[in-house]
Amino acid sequence: MQATNLSWSQTEHNIAKSAFDKAYKRETDFILQAVRQEASKITELQDLWQMNDYLSARRHDLEGKYDFDESSLVFTFANLIKEEWLKIEELEGLAAEKLAKISMLSKM
Amino acid sequence: MQATNLSWSQTEHNIAKSAFDKAYKRETDFILQAVRQEASKITELQDLWQMNDYLSARRHDLEGKYDFDESSLVFTFANLIKEEWLKIEELEGLAAEKLAKISMLSKM
Repeated sequence: MQATNLSWSQTEHNIAKSAFDKAYKRETDFILQAVRQEASKITELQDLWQMNDYLSARRHDLEGKYDFDESSLVFTFANLIKEEWLKIEELEGLAAEKLAKISMLSKM
Repeated sequence: MQATNLSWSQTEHNIAKSAFDKAYKRETDFILQAVRQEASKITELQDLWQMNDYLSARRHDLEGKYDFDESSLVFTFANLIKEEWLKIEELEGLAAEKLAKISMLSKM
């Protein structure tokens, strides 16, 4: 699929950046809250290593997922929608072609 | 130094195991408490990754440090005393030769 050579107007760039930041904040807030909750319940070393594994996985995942590179933004948004960190409505204002691609990819 | 070919009587083995378990419990209790305390103060992602690094380091450290292998027990105890997870008095009952070696190594 042709998705990497789409051009983004300044307005689209701004919409995209705002949605991207929103999803990032949602996901990281979720992780922060989850860790604070889990940490208060920890009683055994095994729980600690499980939290460590969870943190390592989330860190790795976030690093790969939140890359604001226009050439892959359609895929980035499709993934964020699939994982429910973002709604397609929050990308309103992007060209119809981009929205259609993002929507389609998010269902794959 | 000759420290690996010491022989351990059953009584010494029991004293050593009890001290070893005590140190392990102290250190792991400390880590558990530290994490619960720190976790409650976490507000930023950066704090979370710092905790992740701390946990990874502790895990690696514990795995290497708490090896109840008689051939290296004198070194293990010297290290635990140096790091203040154990007091030499808690090894009372071991042969004088072992205690002297442990004490000397703990000051190196």
